[in-house]
Amino acid sequence: MYSQGLQQKFEEKDIEVGDRIKVKDREGLLMPKPDTGDSEIINLKLDSGYNIGLEPEKVELVEKKESEGLKRPEVTHSEDKPDVLILHTGGTIASRVSYKEGGVKPAFEPEDLVQMYPELDEEVNIHSEVIAQMLSEDMEPAHWQEIAEKIDEVQGEYDGIIVGHGTDTMSYTGAALTLMLQGLDTGVMLVGSQRSSDRPSSDASMNVYCASKFLTETEFSGVGICMHETSSDNWCNILPAAKARKMHTSRRNAFSQINAEKIGRINYKSGEIKKNFEKEDEEYELRPELDDNVGMIRIRPGMRPEEVDFLIEQDYNGVIIEGTGLGHMPVNAFDDKTQHHDRILEKLSELADDAVVVMSSQCLNGRVDMNIYSAGIKIQEAGVISAQDMHPELAYVKLMWSLGQASDREEAEEIFQENYSGEISKRSMYHG
Amino acid sequence: MYSQGLQQKFEEKDIEVGDRIKVKDREGLLMPKPDTGDSEIINLKLDSGYNIGLEPEKVELVEKKESEGLKRPEVTHSEDKPDVLILHTGGTIASRVSYKEGGVKPAFEPEDLVQMYPELDEEVNIHSEVIAQMLSEDMEPAHWQEIAEKIDEVQGEYDGIIVGHGTDTMSYTGAALTLMLQGLDTGVMLVGSQRSSDRPSSDASMNVYCASKFLTETEFSGVGICMHETSSDNWCNILPAAKARKMHTSRRNAFSQINAEKIGRINYKSGEIKKNFEKEDEEYELRPELDDNVGMIRIRPGMRPEEVDFLIEQDYNGVIIEGTGLGHMPVNAFDDKTQHHDRILEKLSELADDAVVVMSSQCLNGRVDMNIYSAGIKIQEAGVISAQDMHPELAYVKLMWSLGQASDREEAEEIFQENYSGEISKRSMYHG
Repeated sequence: MYSQGLQQKFEEKDIEVGDRIKVKDREGLLMPKPDTGDSEIINLKLDSGYNIGLEPEKVELVEKKESEGLKRPEVTHSEDKPDVLILHTGGTIASRVSYKEGGVKPAFEPEDLVQMYPELDEEVNIHSEVIAQMLSEDMEPAHWQEIAEKIDEVQGEYDGIIVGHGTDTMSYTGAALTLMLQGLDTGVMLVGSQRSSDRPSSDASMNVYCASKFLTETEFSGVGICMHETSSDNWCNILPAAKARKMHTSRRNAFSQINAEKIGRINYKSGEIKKNFEKEDEEYELRPELDDNVGMIRIRPGMRPEEVDFLIEQDYNGVIIEGTGLGHMPVNAFDDKTQHHDRILEKLSELADDAVVVMSSQCLNGRVDMNIYSAGIKIQEAGVISAQDMHPELAYVKLMWSLGQASDREEAEEIFQENYSGEISKRSMYHG
Repeated sequence: MYSQGLQQKFEEKDIEVGDRIKVKDREGLLMPKPDTGDSEIINLKLDSGYNIGLEPEKVELVEKKESEGLKRPEVTHSEDKPDVLILHTGGTIASRVSYKEGGVKPAFEPEDLVQMYPELDEEVNIHSEVIAQMLSEDMEPAHWQEIAEKIDEVQGEYDGIIVGHGTDTMSYTGAALTLMLQGLDTGVMLVGSQRSSDRPSSDASMNVYCASKFLTETEFSGVGICMHETSSDNWCNILPAAKARKMHTSRRNAFSQINAEKIGRINYKSGEIKKNFEKEDEEYELRPELDDNVGMIRIRPGMRPEEVDFLIEQDYNGVIIEGTGLGHMPVNAFDDKTQHHDRILEKLSELADDAVVVMSSQCLNGRVDMNIYSAGIKIQEAGVISAQDMHPELAYVKLMWSLGQASDREEAEEIFQENYSGEISKRSMYHG
C-alpha cells in the first residue's frame, strides 16, 4: 500500500490503480506499490512496458482505466480458416495488465486471445490450452517432457502449434522439444515476448502473428523460435529452436542463431515470407526420455580442483564443461602458480571414468577442436568428448537426452555425437 | 615417430620434417607425428595454419625447408622512431614453426621479431621482453598481477606496450589489467592471434602492426585489445579490454565488444585510423591487489540446491551467478517438480550471509535488472547484488579486484558497483 499521504493525494485527483496518469513529464499506468517498494514512491508502468519508481511530483490524471465489464468478443471458428493451437506455459507473452488488480496477469482463453490479437483471429481459428503458468526460469526438465507429450497428443489436429513461453530458458526448452519430437510433421513455434502483451510497445502480438502466419502459409515442420529480428516492428526471425540463444537481457530482438542459419524471416506488415528450409520426410517418433543427472562446470582462471571433486561426489551421469577457446582448460602445471593444474587433470580423468564428460566452448560460436593444441590432446586423453558445434546449453540438453535414450555409457556417447535433428552442423570446410 | 614404412617413403623422396610437400591434392609443411597420432597418417600443416592428418597417398616434395642458418637481420634502433615494447606471455602470437624441430616454438628476441614483422621494424624501435611462455588457458590471477607490475615498472619508457597473449583468456586478463592500472598514461594493447605467426594466413603480423600503429599514432592510453575486425586482412578493431569477449572458437575476428563501443579501428593497408575515444586526464595508480577466493555458478533448468551448498562449503568471499535473462534463477516452488526451488532460495540467502554474491546474465548483452519480475525481487531480498552491464567474466574479475581493494564486505560491494575504468556503462535511457 502507498503511504496515507500519497493515497489521499490520489483520492483528491480521482486517481485509482490502473488509471493513466502523468507524474511530472512521465506518463503511464499507476501500478500498486511493489511489495518491497518505498511507499512514498509512485510505481508507474510506462508504455515501454517497464515500471519505474517516481517521486510524487506534479501528479495528474490523464485517463480513467478501462471499464471492468468490457465485453468479450464472440469467438467463431470457420472451416475456411486454418486451426492454430496456442499452448501456454507462462511468461510475459501470456500475460497482460489486469486493470482490476493492477498487476500482470495470465490471459489464455480463446476469447482473451481474440481480444489481444484481433488481427490473428481474422486469419486463423484460434484454439488455446494451458499447460502451465510459470516463469521460464522455474522450468525443469520434467516440464519439457510434459510439453513434448502434449504436442505429441494434439499434433495431428492443428495446422500449427504455438507454444507461449518465457524467454529466459526458451532455448533450453527449444533444444529439448527438437530432440524429443523426432521427425515431427507439424510446425511448432516457441514464441515469447520481452514486454507484456497489452503495452503498445509489446512484441507479443507481432511475434504470435508472425509465428501463426509462418506455420499456416509454409510447409514448415519441426520446432522453431519466432521472435523479433530487429528492435523495430518489421521482420520476425524464424530460428531453429535448438540452435538459438537469448543474447540480450532486454531488447525485443534478444534471440540469435548460434552456428546455424535462420529457417526463415517474415515481414509483419507486408506478410512477405523468406524461406530458408527444405521440407524433409522423416518418420515421426516421440522420444521424451531424459536423464537429468547432468552437471555443468565453468572453466576460468582461478578455478579449483575441488570443483571437479564436487562433480565426482554428485555422481552425475554426464557433465558439460564450458571450456575456453577451441575447448581448453588449465591442465598444464609448470610453475608454483599452476601446480594445482595437475590435480585438475587427475580429477578430470577420475570424473570421466564414471560420467560422460563433454567439452563445449564459452565462445558459443564455432566448433570445439581438441586436436590443435596440446591441452586439447591431454583433455581428450582424460576421456572427454567434444560437443562439436553445439553451444553449452544445447550440449547440456542433448547430453540429458542422449543418456535418457541409451542403455549404457558407450551408447550415450554415440548418440550424443550423432546429429539427430540439426543440432550438430556439418564440419566447416577449412578443417579438411 | 612415423612408421618405418612411411619414414622410408620420405627418405626415397628426400623429404624431411619441415619440408613443403604435397599429399594427393593438399599442400603444406610436413610436421612430426603428434604424440597421440597414428604413425601411418601424415601430419600436414596447411597454409591456413591448421594441421590435418592424411593417408600417405601420392606424396611429393614441393620445396625443401628453409636453411637453418638463416641470417638474422641486424636490429638498429633510431632516435626518430617511437619505442614499442612487446611483452610476451605466450600463446599462438609468440610462436612460429621451428623448421628444425617441426613444432610450434616461441619467438621473442627483438631479432626474431624483426624477422617476423619486418614492416613493423621500419616504423618503430622494437623492444621485447618475456614474462611467460604459457597457453592462456593456464593463466592464473597471480599472472595478471605479474603482468600489471611489469607494465607499471616500464610504462614511462615506451611510447606504447604490446602484450602478446593467448586468445582463450585474453579478456579476463584485459579486465584485470584495466582495473589494476588505474588512469594509466601509456597505451597498452593486448594482441593475440588465431593462427600461428609464420603461416601466410596468420593474423599475428597484422594484429601486431595495427596495435603498434594505433599506440604510436594516437594519444590512446589505458588497456585495449587489438584483433581482426573481419575475417579479411583489412581492418583491426581496437576494443576496450574489459568489455571485450572471445566470441568464436576459430575465426580471426573472434573478439567482440560487449555492452560497449569500440575504441577505434585501423586499416592495415592504408593505415587509416578511426578514433572513438577522448583522452582523459586521470591520476595514475597501480592497484594490483586481488582476492581470488571467488566462485561461479551457472543457472539452468535442472540445477540443484547442492550446487549452492558447495559454494557455501568452499567458503568463498565472492560468488558470480550466471543467471538467465534480466538476472533470474529458479526460486519459486509451486508444484512437485519445483519443490527444491525453495531450498535453492534458502541456500542462496545463506551463501549471501558470508559472501558478496553477484547476479550477472548468461545473455552477455544488456543489463541485469532485478526490479521487473518477482524472481528478481526475491533474489535481491536474499542479499544478491547486480553486475549491472558487466558480463559474467568481467564481473568475476571485478569481484576479485573489489574484494582485494576493500577492507570489509560493505566496501567490497560499494567498489564492485562503482565504475572505475569504463567497466560499467551508464544506464540506458529507457530504464528511466
